[in-house]
Amino acid sequence: MNQHSPSYAITIRLRYSDSPGAMGKITTAIGEADGAIGAVDIVNIRGGKISRDFTVNARDVDHGKRIVEHLRTVEEVEVVHTSDRVFLMHLGGKIEVLPKMPIKTRDDLSMAYTPGVARVCNAIAEDPDSSFALTIRQNTVAVVSDGSAVLGLGNIGPRAAMPVMEGKAMLFKEFANVDAFPICLDTQDTEAIIETVRQLAPTFGGINLEDISAPRCIEIEERLDKELEIPVFHDDQHGTAIVVLAGLKNSLLRVGKTLSGIRVVVNGAGAAGTAIVKLLLISGAKDIVVCDRDGAIHAGEPSQPDASKQWIADNTNPRGASGKLSEVIQGADVFIGVSAPNVLQTEDVAAMAADPIVFALANPDPEILPAKAAPHVRIMATGRSDFPNQINNVLCFPGLFRGVLDVRATTINNEMKLAAAEAIAATIPESDLLDDYVIPSVFDRRVAKVVAQAVAKAAVDTGVARRRNKPAEELM
Amino acid sequence: MNQHSPSYAITIRLRYSDSPGAMGKITTAIGEADGAIGAVDIVNIRGGKISRDFTVNARDVDHGKRIVEHLRTVEEVEVVHTSDRVFLMHLGGKIEVLPKMPIKTRDDLSMAYTPGVARVCNAIAEDPDSSFALTIRQNTVAVVSDGSAVLGLGNIGPRAAMPVMEGKAMLFKEFANVDAFPICLDTQDTEAIIETVRQLAPTFGGINLEDISAPRCIEIEERLDKELEIPVFHDDQHGTAIVVLAGLKNSLLRVGKTLSGIRVVVNGAGAAGTAIVKLLLISGAKDIVVCDRDGAIHAGEPSQPDASKQWIADNTNPRGASGKLSEVIQGADVFIGVSAPNVLQTEDVAAMAADPIVFALANPDPEILPAKAAPHVRIMATGRSDFPNQINNVLCFPGLFRGVLDVRATTINNEMKLAAAEAIAATIPESDLLDDYVIPSVFDRRVAKVVAQAVAKAAVDTGVARRRNKPAEELM
Repeated sequence: MNQHSPSYAITIRLRYSDSPGAMGKITTAIGEADGAIGAVDIVNIRGGKISRDFTVNARDVDHGKRIVEHLRTVEEVEVVHTSDRVFLMHLGGKIEVLPKMPIKTRDDLSMAYTPGVARVCNAIAEDPDSSFALTIRQNTVAVVSDGSAVLGLGNIGPRAAMPVMEGKAMLFKEFANVDAFPICLDTQDTEAIIETVRQLAPTFGGINLEDISAPRCIEIEERLDKELEIPVFHDDQHGTAIVVLAGLKNSLLRVGKTLSGIRVVVNGAGAAGTAIVKLLLISGAKDIVVCDRDGAIHAGEPSQPDASKQWIADNTNPRGASGKLSEVIQGADVFIGVSAPNVLQTEDVAAMAADPIVFALANPDPEILPAKAAPHVRIMATGRSDFPNQINNVLCFPGLFRGVLDVRATTINNEMKLAAAEAIAATIPESDLLDDYVIPSVFDRRVAKVVAQAVAKAAVDTGVARRRNKPAEELM
Repeated sequence: MNQHSPSYAITIRLRYSDSPGAMGKITTAIGEADGAIGAVDIVNIRGGKISRDFTVNARDVDHGKRIVEHLRTVEEVEVVHTSDRVFLMHLGGKIEVLPKMPIKTRDDLSMAYTPGVARVCNAIAEDPDSSFALTIRQNTVAVVSDGSAVLGLGNIGPRAAMPVMEGKAMLFKEFANVDAFPICLDTQDTEAIIETVRQLAPTFGGINLEDISAPRCIEIEERLDKELEIPVFHDDQHGTAIVVLAGLKNSLLRVGKTLSGIRVVVNGAGAAGTAIVKLLLISGAKDIVVCDRDGAIHAGEPSQPDASKQWIADNTNPRGASGKLSEVIQGADVFIGVSAPNVLQTEDVAAMAADPIVFALANPDPEILPAKAAPHVRIMATGRSDFPNQINNVLCFPGLFRGVLDVRATTINNEMKLAAAEAIAATIPESDLLDDYVIPSVFDRRVAKVVAQAVAKAAVDTGVARRRNKPAEELM
C-alpha cells in the first residue's frame, strides 16, 4: 500500500454548526477513512455555521474519493466542495517570466526598449559573442522535450509533457538561480528535433534535453552538441549517470572496495544504462556486465540491432559472461538497475559477493523493494524519496548548468561529468557516511554550489570555457 | 541636435577631496560640457577622499565621451571609471524565469514535480486541450524573430535582435501580466521559420512575430496562423495598423471628417503599409493611394513584382492617381508615412486639403519633422516619444494578447483588430481630445485593460474563442 502523500492531497471544504464535539466528529471520520490531516483553515463563519478547509493527504486518487464519501455520512456536516491540491497548483502553469527591472517611466522604457536598446543590438551585431553577456543567454537554459518518454508514463506527447518541463525549470531556478524555459516540441522526428533546436540556439546558453526516447535521444544529443556553440545535455542519460557514480563512490568507501576491483551488473541497456556504463568505465571500472531482457550482452553474439548495444558488446563484459540476470548477478559486487519493477529477487541479492550494493532505480517501482533486499543487501539506493539513498537528478542538473553558464562552456565533456560526480559525493565527508546515507539529500543546498564550482573548473582546465572575463566596460 | 536622453546616460565615478567648492567645480564642468546631471550617489569615503557616482544624460555616445574628457581636465578630481547605464542594464539580460510557488520542502517537490506531476500529465494526455488550463500556455506568448528587420537597424541577425525581444517580453508582463518569452531563430529561411514555430506551438498560447522582413513576414504569419491551434500575429504589420487606425479615428473627430469621405495617402508599400491599408479599407476608407519609391501604385501598371503590391494595385487608388508623392499628396486629407526620413516637404503639407493630418512614422527620423510641418499641419503624429501623439505598438500588443489568452482565441481576426483600435481610441473621451492628444500615452494603464476586454468580446462574438469556462474541478 502506498504511503500518505501530498501528491494525493485533497482539500475538502466542510460547513457545519460549530458545536462542541463537531470538530472531533470530523477528524474522527477522516481517521476512520485512513486520511492524514495536513492542515485545517477557517474559511468563514456565516449564519451560525462555520466553513473550514481540511487538507488531507491520501494514499492515491481512489482513497481520496473514499475519504470524501465517508465524510458525507457524518451527520450535520455538509461537504461544500473538494479540490485536488496538485491540480490547483498547476492551474495556469508553474512558472512566470518577469522583468528584472521595472518599466514605469519613459526613462525606463527608453533604456530597456527603444531607442536605447538599439546601441546594445549594434554592439552584439559587431561581436556576436557578446550576446553571452548582454542577453538572457548568460543565464538561460532551454528544457526541451518531445514528450516521447515522460517519467514512467511513456509517449504522452508534448502537451502532456509540459508540467514536467515546467517543474524542471522551477528546480533550475530554485537550486541554482538558472533561468530555464520549457520547450515542448510538436514532432518526434529526429531530424526535425535537431533542426528546431539548432534554430533556437541564439536564445540560450545551454540546452537540457529531457524525456526523449532511446535510441533517438543519443543521436540528437551528439549531433546537436557537436554543431552548436552551446552545450547540449540529455539529462536522462548523463544526469542519471553522474548521480549514480556519486552514490557508488561513497558506497564503495563504506565497503572498502574500489571501482577497478569490483564486478558490476547493469540491468537495462537503454540510454541511461549506456551512459552509466560509459561513465563507470572512464572512472576506472573494469568488469561491467550489462543485461537486457535477453540476458547478458557479450561480444560473442551476432551483431546488435542498435548502435549502443553494439558498443556495449564491444566495450564491456571482459569475462564474456552470458546468461540471464539471475546467473550473471552471482558474485557481483554491485547491481545497478535502470529497467523495470521487480526483476531482481531476494535470492539474487543473496548470491552477490559480500556487502552487496544494489541501486534499484526503476521508477516508481524499483527492481527490488528495499524490504525484499534487506536480509542480504548492505547498501541500497532507489529513485524514490520515501526510502533512504535517493538517486535524484536534481542533485546534478542545476549545479552542472550553473557551472556551464558561469564559464560559458561550449560543451559538457567527460571531465566535467566526473567533476560533478566527485563534487556530489564529496558533499558528505567520509566520516559522516552511513550505509543509508551515501548520497546527499536533494534539499542539501551545498550540492548545487560545489557542483557548479567543480564543473566550471573542469571546463576551464579542459579548454572548453570561453568566458573571457572581459570587463563590462569593454563591451560598451 | 538630439535632446539629452537616458538612452545615452553614463555614470561617472569621481574621487576627490571633499573640500568646500569641489562639488561646485564638478557640476560646473559637467554643465560646461553640456551634460544633464540625473543623480549623484556617494560610493564611499576612504583615506580622506570621497568617491561619488555622477549619472549624466548625454545627447549621444560621442557627447558622453566629451563630457568625461572635460571632467579629466578638472584639477584634483580623478575619473575612476565610467559606465554606460544602458549597457549596465542589459548585462545578463532583462528578464528572468521564476517559479510561481517555492520548492522548499519534499511536499512542494512531490506536488510540483515527481511523483505528483504525473497525474497532471495524464490528465493532459487524455484531454490535450486542458494544456491551456494546466500549463503556462494559459498565459504565455512567444516573441519570435529572425533578426532580419530589427528596429531601424536592418538585418542584424538573431543574436543582436535578442535585446529587443527581451524588452518586448518585459512590456508584455508590465502592461498586461502576459508571460512572454523571446525566441530568436538562427535561420532566415521562410520554410525553416514556419517549421520551427510550428514545432514550438504546444508550449505557447500565442505567437507574436517581430522584426521579420517583408515580404516573408506576410507568408510566415498567414500560413502559421492557419495551421496552428494558437493565434500568430506579426506585430510590425497589424500592431502598427491598429494603433494608426486608433489615432486616425480620433484625429478625424477633431477635424469633423469621416473615413469614408477622406483621401488618404500612404507612403511605403511594405508589410506595415499594406496592413494599414487593409485595416483602413475594412474600417470604411474608400480613397487610399499608396506610394512606393516610384510613386503612386495604380491598377494600370504592369503586374507588380510582389504579391502585396499587386494586391495594393488591385484594391486601392479608385481614381487611378499616378505620379510622385508630391503630386498625389495634393488635396489629400491624411498622410501616413511608414517609409523613410524627410521624404515629405513643407510645401507638400501646404498642398493638402484643409486641416491636414500627418502621421510620419519612420523611426527614428520621421518623414517630416513636426517643426517643418508646423506652419500647415493640423494634427501631427510620429513614432517618437519626444513629440506629441506617439504612435507606439505598446498601446496594442499587451492588451491584445491579454484578451486572446483570456478567451483562448484560435486566431486574431479583423473584428478583433478593429475592436482593439476602437478601444484604444475610446480611452480618450471625445471631449478631452486635443490636436496634440489624439492617442493615449503609452503609460496610460487603462489602455491594456480596455483593449483586452474589447478583443476578448470580439473573439467570443466571432466564434474564435475556445474557453469553455469549465470549472477547475472538472479538469481533475
